[in-house]
Formats: sequence, structure tokens, C-alpha cells
Amino acid sequence: MAKQLGICSVAYEEPVYIRSGVSVVGKKENEGPLNGLFDYVADDPMMGGKTWEEGENAFVKKAVSLLMQKNSELASGVRYIVGGDLLGQGIGTTFGVEEFHLPFFGLYGACSTSGEALSIGSMLVNAGCADELICVTSSHFASAEKEFRTPLDYGTQRPECATWTVTGSGAFLLSGKEPQLRMSAVRITGVTTGRIVDYGVKDSMNMGACMAPAAADTLLRHFKDFKSEPKDYDRIITGDLGMVGREALLQLMREEGIEISDRHIDCGIEMFDSLAQKTNAGGSGCGCAATVLAALILPKLRSGEWKKVIFMPTGALLSRVSFNEGKTIPGIAHCVVLEHNG
Amino acid sequence: MAKQLGICSVAYEEPVYIRSGVSVVGKKENEGPLNGLFDYVADDPMMGGKTWEEGENAFVKKAVSLLMQKNSELASGVRYIVGGDLLGQGIGTTFGVEEFHLPFFGLYGACSTSGEALSIGSMLVNAGCADELICVTSSHFASAEKEFRTPLDYGTQRPECATWTVTGSGAFLLSGKEPQLRMSAVRITGVTTGRIVDYGVKDSMNMGACMAPAAADTLLRHFKDFKSEPKDYDRIITGDLGMVGREALLQLMREEGIEISDRHIDCGIEMFDSLAQKTNAGGSGCGCAATVLAALILPKLRSGEWKKVIFMPTGALLSRVSFNEGKTIPGIAHCVVLEHNG
Repeated sequence: MAKQLGICSVAYEEPVYIRSGVSVVGKKENEGPLNGLFDYVADDPMMGGKTWEEGENAFVKKAVSLLMQKNSELASGVRYIVGGDLLGQGIGTTFGVEEFHLPFFGLYGACSTSGEALSIGSMLVNAGCADELICVTSSHFASAEKEFRTPLDYGTQRPECATWTVTGSGAFLLSGKEPQLRMSAVRITGVTTGRIVDYGVKDSMNMGACMAPAAADTLLRHFKDFKSEPKDYDRIITGDLGMVGREALLQLMREEGIEISDRHIDCGIEMFDSLAQKTNAGGSGCGCAATVLAALILPKLRSGEWKKVIFMPTGALLSRVSFNEGKTIPGIAHCVVLEHNG
Repeated sequence: MAKQLGICSVAYEEPVYIRSGVSVVGKKENEGPLNGLFDYVADDPMMGGKTWEEGENAFVKKAVSLLMQKNSELASGVRYIVGGDLLGQGIGTTFGVEEFHLPFFGLYGACSTSGEALSIGSMLVNAGCADELICVTSSHFASAEKEFRTPLDYGTQRPECATWTVTGSGAFLLSGKEPQLRMSAVRITGVTTGRIVDYGVKDSMNMGACMAPAAADTLLRHFKDFKSEPKDYDRIITGDLGMVGREALLQLMREEGIEISDRHIDCGIEMFDSLAQKTNAGGSGCGCAATVLAALILPKLRSGEWKKVIFMPTGALLSRVSFNEGKTIPGIAHCVVLEHNG
């Protein structure tokens, strides 16, 4: 059973494990600082599909397939797929997972969806609803630009504060079962669920500014609910705030008297070499935090280099319609605590 | 803790209650057979908003507000809002719930979302993650037509098999606490989670045909997992198959040797008088099953007229993009078992 903490958090008395993670990315993602750490690199961003959306479907399918192959002894026990993507009506995920023919819960949390999936997934495992389940999220540079901004063919100039949607999919196998080799798994020990936070920002080319207030809101409540402080964590990891959003988050936390700059990292900043790769403020998308979790964060937690981290993907809640109708872009951030299983 | 049944179902050992439900609908919905049963009827389909989307937001906000007012003694314990709608990136819900400032899990399951929300919501209550939480879904005729089909101004002719998206929102307060007045609550005793089922149908004007195979798939697995049969339920209630989808479901079940026609009802068929109201095959949308649950189904379960029913909203997983790219329209159906708390 889960233990409720404060108004927004739960802690697990029995452990929930991330038994395995898989990252599938595009060529550009593998040309960044994380070169060589991904499970699969697709040179063709369409992966043989006829449309960008079919390309995204193929990334999802590849991530889930590889995860099942890597965990063949657990795969038969998988009871749910829980996940989502950035596209309208979740078509990136629907057509990516349909052929696995497993019970499916579709989610939407914008770029925070990997945090939402790990939150709900771990709650379901903890509740005994599943011994094993899969969390999967994806994004695709071309399908996302088409969905949210302007057709790629326009060649629109990108301001410095814009982020670059990661082409990739990350999939994770959650289980309540202790692994034979303890260090092969990472534990999810707690969750702080995000609220929608709206500072009135309306610039869809500056997602960092839209999401930073939500990140600060979740982080402050997390410290309060868990009676913890930054030094209790080896790293505080946001999803895709990018360089502009990171500065805003650090500033918002300082205003509350909390300094996190020495241990904060952002998956979007880790993903690309922004100058060399011209990605401006960093990477973004549901696939960003998920692939960096599989490629970089889980290995460091497995090895014990990091004992305990906050993993907090952030999402900007807009659609083309809401943006064109002049609505604000609220943010949300879903936090999970990940620990070395030493 | 939940007990796993078969490969797709869970049963709850401790009860989860729907303590209260609220329905907010438009004028046309209240002119149908369920006239007078709704909690609130909005004569203005924009509810004071400037756009159809703002109208939908207002329906959501009204439903959640009324639910909290009706349950003021429980409202302070609400830990999560779980829900979604049909619009891209869930903007119907986001801007509807943001001002409640509660931890939020956004879902997407097309018109099955109310079933998905009750499934995940009941799992979270059962897990002890929340004593109380709110499930909410919505749809809006005008915002949905704009999102999925053609602008209303075109006056496109609607084939007989088309359904009419319900303008409305239904909100439910789930709780693990036994109510003082037993009969004031309805119990959720089990869940069978839907898989994506794709028969290759591509007609977005015939959603019933897209969704019926998924309804049959979930229903067959439900009977198997729970070792139950149709006569164990007073009603088997689908979300919005409409008249075409109902016939397809009855036929698919007959092919498996199971007759459900004497106890099957469909929220979409209940909602409108199709001839008088020119709604063709019936009502549809995330708001259809949810408002009929609050207005019709919960009262009959409370009174004991019905002791046990299957509530199974169905969803058609398409987007404007996937439809225009020639993709199929797969279906999904999420089933919850609702029982009189006698």
C-alpha cells in the first residue's frame, strides 16, 4: 500500500522496481553528448514509414519490442501498457502499441508524460493491479513541429529560447518483483503529482518559461511532503526546461530560499550540444526525458554512482487551437523519486 | 489491495465507492428522453465563453464545482483530478480544471475516457494513494466537429450511421470511505481494461462500427476473467456505440454464443430521441457516457432497482491527422463493474 504524504505525494512501503529501460532515438540525438549510450539509433527518421506520424509509431514499437526482448522472462507477465505522446489524440502511441494487444491506458501530460506514466504505473504495481507493466512515451521533431507550430517547409526562424523536440521513444518495465541481481534494477520510492500552474505565458517558442513555474511548484511541495531538502538527492533532474527554463527554475527556488544549482540537471540540456547542433535552448518532448532516463540516469543509479535522484519531467499544456485562440500555456511537472537498489 | 483476474482484470477486496456524480449538459441533451434528470442544464452552449473550447472548459468547471459543493464534507480530502476529453492535447480538461489547483493526471481514451478515468481512479483509491479523488470527462458537439470532421459552417450532410457528440461533462467523487447512508453510494467492484482492437474500419462518420469490436473484446474477456455471464448483470451498458454499433456488438457476441440483447443498453441511444432530435445513430463523446452515468445509471444503482451493472464506455482512436493520412480507426473499451451498496 502507498502512504500518503502531505497533499500531493505518496511513498511506497513495498518497493516498485524499474527493471529495465530502453531508448530508441534518431541520428541527431546520437550525435550529441550522449552518443553511444542509446539502445537503438534509427538513421531514417521515418523508420520506413510513409509519414512523420508513422515514423513516430515505429520508434514506439521498436522501444517496446526491444524492452520485451531484453526481458523475455518478465514479458509474459506484462498486464498494461501505460503511456502517451504529444500528438493530438495520442496517435503516436496508439498506432505504436496496438499490435502488442495489451490492456492500454492512454495518457496526456505533454512533455511530462513520462513522469505521469511512471507515477501511475508505479501506483498500479504498488496496488497489486499488475506484477509487471510497461510505461512508454515518444516524441518526434517533425510530427511535433507540424502539430504545434508551422510546417517544416516554411523554414521558420527559431528564437534562442526555442527547444528542439527529441525524436525518440523510451520504454520501461516496472515490476513489484525483486530482481535476482539487485543492482540490475532501480527503485521508485515516491511520487509527487503535478498541479497545473499558469503564469500567463503565451509564447509557444519559449516552453522553458511556461514550464519552470510548474517545476518549482512540484519541487517545493515535494520537499515539504517528504520533509527533504536538495542535499538528500544526488541530482534533481528536470525533463526539458532547457537553458531558459533552468534559469527560471533556479531563480524561483532561490526566491523560496532553496539553492539547487549544484545538483540540478535537465534532460533537454544533456541531450544536445546546443551550439554545435543548433538546438538553441535544448531538447524537449515526451521522448526527451524518457530516452535520457534510459540512457543516462538509470545506468548511474544502477551502478550506485547516484544513490537517489528526483526525476521530474515537465509539460507545457497547449494545443494549436488553444494557442491560436490566444490562451495561455500552463505547465505541469510530475516528480518520481528514483533510488539505487543497493 | 487489488486481486488480479485473468490477464486483463482486477477485483477489489476493499470497496471503492462512487460517492457522488454530477452531470452538466446543454439544452439539446435535456430535450431528449433524459429530460429533467441532469444536475445542471446550460442554455448557452458557450456558457459565456468566447470560443467552443472555452464553452467546453466551462462545462468541466461547472461539473467539478457542483460536485465539490454537493460533497463539501469530502471535498477537502480530494487529492487528484483524473480525466480528459476529446480535444487535441486535452485542452477541454486542462483549462476546465486548472483553477482547482489539484494534482492532475490527464488521460486520453477518446469516448472511453470516462471508463479509463474510473478504472485508474478506483485503482488509486484502492492502492491508498488517495482517500478521495475526482474523475471528470467532457465533450462538446461544436468543438468535437471542428476537431475531427469539418467546420460546422460547411453544413456537411450526416449519414444515418453518424452519431451526435454530446455537449456535457460528468464528474464523480471516488472514495474508499463507507458513506454514513449506505445507499447514497455505488461500489466499483472490478475493472477490465481495454486493448486496442483494429478491424480496419476507416469511416469517421461510423464510429459505432469502429468501436463495436473493442466492446466485444473487452466484454468477452470480462466474462472469462470474472467467470461471469450476462445474467449476472442487470444491465450491460456501453458508452456510445449508437444504433449501428449496438447491432454490431450484439452480432459479435452471438458469434461467440452469448446473447446480451435483453440487457444491453447504450448511453448514446438513451441520450437522444434520434428521429425527433435528428441525431441519427445516437449520442457520443466523452461527455455522453459520463453524464448518463450520473443522471440515469447511478440513481438506479442507488435505489437498488439495478443491483449490478457493467459500465463500458467505448472509444474510437483517431485524429484528424491519422484520418487524413488514411489510417484505420481502432477502438478501445474500458469496463468497470458497478454495484448497489445494499
